[in-house]
Amino acid sequence: MLLDAAREAAAEAVGCRADELVFTSSGTRAVHSGIAGTLAGRRRVGRHLIVSAVEHSSVLHSADAHEAEGGTVTQVAVDRAGAVAVASYADALRPDTALACLQSANHEVGTEQPVAAVAEVCREAGVPLLVDAAQSLGWGPVGGDWSLLTASAHKWGGPSGVGLLVVRKGVRFAAQGPVDERESGRAAGFENIPAIVAAAASLRAVRAEAAQEAVRLRELTDRIRARVPRLVPDVEVVGDPVRRLPGVVTFSCLYVDGEALLHEMDRAGFSVSSGSSCTSSTLTPSHVLKAMGVLSEGNVRVSLPAGTPAEDVERFLDVLPGAVAAVREKLGAPTPSTAVEEEALVVDALGKRCPVPVIELAKVIGEVPVGGTVRVLSDDEAARLDIPAWCAMREQEYVGEEPAERGSAYVVRRLS
Amino acid sequence: MLLDAAREAAAEAVGCRADELVFTSSGTRAVHSGIAGTLAGRRRVGRHLIVSAVEHSSVLHSADAHEAEGGTVTQVAVDRAGAVAVASYADALRPDTALACLQSANHEVGTEQPVAAVAEVCREAGVPLLVDAAQSLGWGPVGGDWSLLTASAHKWGGPSGVGLLVVRKGVRFAAQGPVDERESGRAAGFENIPAIVAAAASLRAVRAEAAQEAVRLRELTDRIRARVPRLVPDVEVVGDPVRRLPGVVTFSCLYVDGEALLHEMDRAGFSVSSGSSCTSSTLTPSHVLKAMGVLSEGNVRVSLPAGTPAEDVERFLDVLPGAVAAVREKLGAPTPSTAVEEEALVVDALGKRCPVPVIELAKVIGEVPVGGTVRVLSDDEAARLDIPAWCAMREQEYVGEEPAERGSAYVVRRLS
Repeated sequence: MLLDAAREAAAEAVGCRADELVFTSSGTRAVHSGIAGTLAGRRRVGRHLIVSAVEHSSVLHSADAHEAEGGTVTQVAVDRAGAVAVASYADALRPDTALACLQSANHEVGTEQPVAAVAEVCREAGVPLLVDAAQSLGWGPVGGDWSLLTASAHKWGGPSGVGLLVVRKGVRFAAQGPVDERESGRAAGFENIPAIVAAAASLRAVRAEAAQEAVRLRELTDRIRARVPRLVPDVEVVGDPVRRLPGVVTFSCLYVDGEALLHEMDRAGFSVSSGSSCTSSTLTPSHVLKAMGVLSEGNVRVSLPAGTPAEDVERFLDVLPGAVAAVREKLGAPTPSTAVEEEALVVDALGKRCPVPVIELAKVIGEVPVGGTVRVLSDDEAARLDIPAWCAMREQEYVGEEPAERGSAYVVRRLS
Repeated sequence: MLLDAAREAAAEAVGCRADELVFTSSGTRAVHSGIAGTLAGRRRVGRHLIVSAVEHSSVLHSADAHEAEGGTVTQVAVDRAGAVAVASYADALRPDTALACLQSANHEVGTEQPVAAVAEVCREAGVPLLVDAAQSLGWGPVGGDWSLLTASAHKWGGPSGVGLLVVRKGVRFAAQGPVDERESGRAAGFENIPAIVAAAASLRAVRAEAAQEAVRLRELTDRIRARVPRLVPDVEVVGDPVRRLPGVVTFSCLYVDGEALLHEMDRAGFSVSSGSSCTSSTLTPSHVLKAMGVLSEGNVRVSLPAGTPAEDVERFLDVLPGAVAAVREKLGAPTPSTAVEEEALVVDALGKRCPVPVIELAKVIGEVPVGGTVRVLSDDEAARLDIPAWCAMREQEYVGEEPAERGSAYVVRRLS
């Protein structure tokens, strides 16, 4: 009875029938099961899968697994704000498309996707759309005529260990893995009733205040979006300024190591995240920032939980400039007062990690005559993204990349 | 740090290295992942899987999935007490055996399996043994040189939503499904830290009192095992009387509908279970009781949680005889005072569900001359098990089953 009541409550919040919704052990499991079940159920149609380039890793890893098993995947690009174009999904649809996936909003930069419009073009083509609503379900139901939806309770402030998988009636779905009779055969394992009840109750509670809290948090993140570029030199705020989640704001700082900045902010009492290329655990750049073509170095994601007081945001804005300056100083980043002596037109940044290659580039660009070029030698993957991004920010010309004895040479022409 | 500490504590309780243990979202998930990962990792050796006939459904369903994908499965039979013979596992091992699975103790009847000896024959053959330790891990570590182990926290009194999967170093293991970096790539999804911490703490707490509590509960279940057959006529206590879990006792009552008896006991304040053929949710007989060849009708499983007071057991024994008698009366079961008038040698029990066919048989057997036969017509699956079982209990001869116009005719010869 508790499970039934929780299912009714969650279904009401999603806007679906109770018998279309099952509880999984996590959002990741909901995504894995939703994608695998739909691909298997629609195997006769074909084995083509569409995802956006900025989906959560659970979606992208499912796509990788599908490719490894012989399926085909189209990755839809995003614009500089992180959003897909509806036309790109329309173009990607094929007669053998089994499933399309699109997040409701991005988990790193907060940009909202045009889910309803994409759902419409998918519906016209007879292709189900799976919406990963992990980022947005606490704020409201996902509009449009989607076919599958996934979410995660801890993302709306509920407990860990509960995800949602909604499969609309009419979607051909064949659950994969060993048979398990629980949750309509779609989520194996003993049902975690206490956590499920808490998840449904918390979703209802969060939703009751969502409209009001969204306005308040949006004002606070607007404050951060507007003031960070004025307080900190050489910062790029990323993500769509309007169509975005209320409580998330992301920016990247030139000449900064994201991980070092997180530590500085942590010491000041702020837990921020980084989707940067320079985290210690993975040295590959954030796939989201890469797909958007924005600066990935010194990346900071600020997530404001519901109830965050305005004073905390003010204190954050007080602390941030000093923290960035401290990291830049440690790295020897260029400042207006630094006199650059070096005259060489080749910068050897081999063996140096992001953001050092860009810092070295910035140090010498002033020494090159306008129209002249600098070659930056680097074997760091992130340089491939960050040197062009630096050129765009500094209005210098990025000429291109050339193979070098070790790593690559990135050629930059001084324009001003 | 919390996760590391929980892993250390759980590994100590299991008797393995911390880096061999991952937390899954349930015992079922641990079994599914453990079996699939080992079968994939050892695919070059072959695709033969060994399981016992009385494993948990998560193991048997994994075996079904393996067969559906072209693998082969040997199901090892059990004796009337529910235990496998070590020699049967030795006989089942083949050059292409990728994995063998054996529970530490049975979940329906409590019988302990000879895990250490089976692990030894598997080790000699170079085949990993996966032990489903869900029933026993709270009582102590699993002895012997097993290769993989699974368990479930809620079974030892911990929270829902946490399972364990242990893969010993040296086992070839290839995690299946989309890549997920968490838990060594063996358990996808956001880690449920609060539940994992509670699981490890509760395992430690339960173990601290396990030895003492096992003695106490064993005395209480011995009391039930000894007294139920004296208090209730026509009862068979099942499972090994000695090599068994401390807190579980299972018996079957002739002429009783298990579900009806559960309701009677529930009304008296006792939550007991039934692995009977006659549950409302699934009309197939318990695969465990079937494999043991014991009576499946009127089956009751009593699980005593740690701390169960002796008075509760006494009250249970007070209430049970009346509850069984009430169910039997409703079903019109034979009693010594019932005069059976019917003379026909054919009993038509078509369309009637367990335990009615056996009740009808019992009603007429007294009217048949010794050496004569009765044909019971039945289309209930459970009759196939319960009529032979009744014959064994009543010392009548079960002649065999013959096809009939509808269902089957079960032929019984009166011997006394």
